[in-house]
Amino acid sequence: MDFKELKEFLETHDDYLILTHRNPDGDTMGSGFALWNILKGMGKRARVVNNEPFSPRYDFLYEGYTETEFEPRTVIAVDVADKKLLGENLTEYEDRVDVCIDHHISNKAYAKQSIVDGNASSATLVLYRFIKEQGIPLNDIIAKCIYTGLATDTGCFKFSNTIPEAHIAAAELMAYDIDFVNVNRRMFDIKSKGRMIVESAVTNEMEHYFGGKCTMICVTRALIEKTGVDIAEFDGLASIPLQVQGAVIGVTLREHRDREGFKLSVRTTEEADASAFCRQFGGGGHIRAAGCEIEGGLEEVKAKVLKAVGEMLGE
Amino acid sequence: MDFKELKEFLETHDDYLILTHRNPDGDTMGSGFALWNILKGMGKRARVVNNEPFSPRYDFLYEGYTETEFEPRTVIAVDVADKKLLGENLTEYEDRVDVCIDHHISNKAYAKQSIVDGNASSATLVLYRFIKEQGIPLNDIIAKCIYTGLATDTGCFKFSNTIPEAHIAAAELMAYDIDFVNVNRRMFDIKSKGRMIVESAVTNEMEHYFGGKCTMICVTRALIEKTGVDIAEFDGLASIPLQVQGAVIGVTLREHRDREGFKLSVRTTEEADASAFCRQFGGGGHIRAAGCEIEGGLEEVKAKVLKAVGEMLGE
Repeated sequence: MDFKELKEFLETHDDYLILTHRNPDGDTMGSGFALWNILKGMGKRARVVNNEPFSPRYDFLYEGYTETEFEPRTVIAVDVADKKLLGENLTEYEDRVDVCIDHHISNKAYAKQSIVDGNASSATLVLYRFIKEQGIPLNDIIAKCIYTGLATDTGCFKFSNTIPEAHIAAAELMAYDIDFVNVNRRMFDIKSKGRMIVESAVTNEMEHYFGGKCTMICVTRALIEKTGVDIAEFDGLASIPLQVQGAVIGVTLREHRDREGFKLSVRTTEEADASAFCRQFGGGGHIRAAGCEIEGGLEEVKAKVLKAVGEMLGE
Repeated sequence: MDFKELKEFLETHDDYLILTHRNPDGDTMGSGFALWNILKGMGKRARVVNNEPFSPRYDFLYEGYTETEFEPRTVIAVDVADKKLLGENLTEYEDRVDVCIDHHISNKAYAKQSIVDGNASSATLVLYRFIKEQGIPLNDIIAKCIYTGLATDTGCFKFSNTIPEAHIAAAELMAYDIDFVNVNRRMFDIKSKGRMIVESAVTNEMEHYFGGKCTMICVTRALIEKTGVDIAEFDGLASIPLQVQGAVIGVTLREHRDREGFKLSVRTTEEADASAFCRQFGGGGHIRAAGCEIEGGLEEVKAKVLKAVGEMLGE
């Protein structure tokens, strides 16, 4: 499907359900509400749904959003690479997706028709290209939605997926009232009180090996209990160990909830290969970010990991 | 002085000393080494100096930089708003600055000639405008220097000083080998082990008042001693309290080193006025970031602050 066909599709259908992925982020939410506003501009009925209720974290994207009751007749998924990512509350739509708009090269092509551009920094950038190519009217809220997805998925223009076009789009979107300072504050700076406690606790217990080249945090069940913070706040800690100056490999050990053993998340600088490291434990991933599982108690697992790190560093 | 005059000046002088400001950041360093490379391209002799020896933090900007001995005959300051910011080791040049290239609206006009554009996001953006307007040859290292200043001073395109032109420049600079992922990792993600300990310690002791609307950290002499970390690592903590979800005013109390009393740094969201808050204690600043000093012991100072916060919040 190309952008011209997408425009024709949107114009000739109605009563849209817009599906976003579970554990929503700024890109799936930004795409969803950008599309909702585009459809509204075309005089169509639409509703955005997620596996969970909308979080107040994204309430600046819901500006002007209103829900009306109707039986969905057209289903569009945005930023959803795999139908399994819709979540358990949206399984009824898994095989009913008419169009998928996405930027994941790994997209499973589960929809009847797809527009997937793995070269776009965000799903909202795919939508922005559509808007520009097909002359869809842009306004403040659509611009804010597009910018939010772009900023979220590029880590505010920091990650390697930031293409020049992402910066050009940001510059153009700033002609609208997108309040990017506030968007970025919400997306990147603000943390829950629980998350602050968790980050403080794991940093506090961070271990340093091989003259600081290896840093490690151990998220044990005991640590989780000690903090008294909701377990959801313990996700996404794997980038912390590599923030320490001099670290080449950052390892996060996360104890299984219900059995002995640990999940390892490994992050490396350009001086080490995370994927090769994890393969020796039966895992894998990317060159800078990979994972695996290791059976055993804490001290045993740590010994295994440190032996492998020592060999990798030649120490 | 305009860009045409600057080009003529650079072409008709030689033996340059390029001054950067003390406590150097990516913008003053990026400007300094960009200018060094521009002068080198013109066949000129130049040297970049700072109050302290260059930090390894910025070593990617020193690529190809070599120092030769010569008696400076021309002095240029970059990103230095006030001659006092040169530092105690460069006082001999305070009144010898021939040209100042800067972007601070508060620039003190201490140089014989100045190019100051308060509308530029960074001093390197002023240099980039000069390069484009006057057809100065651009290369990988100059592009990396310009990008580094731009990213540093805008908080990687997050702060309100990010103008559309900053994004456009970033997009253009990406045509060169600037390795922006590595630049941003070094500028924003990597922290010293000591800094990690400090952030963990203050977060750990963060206090929450008025249902979380006010967050406070107290950097006492006792806390500094307890961590055993170099005192320099305790600078720039004031943004931490406002990172907590729900916080409207974030207060950082820093105990004086040599006498009773505290320095307050206040940060607010759009719901409160930091400047007005600090004025009642004889301080001042900007609407979102201000400061003041309060005499007294810790509990006494906290009580005064919390009383004022309660009044401001109407609680």
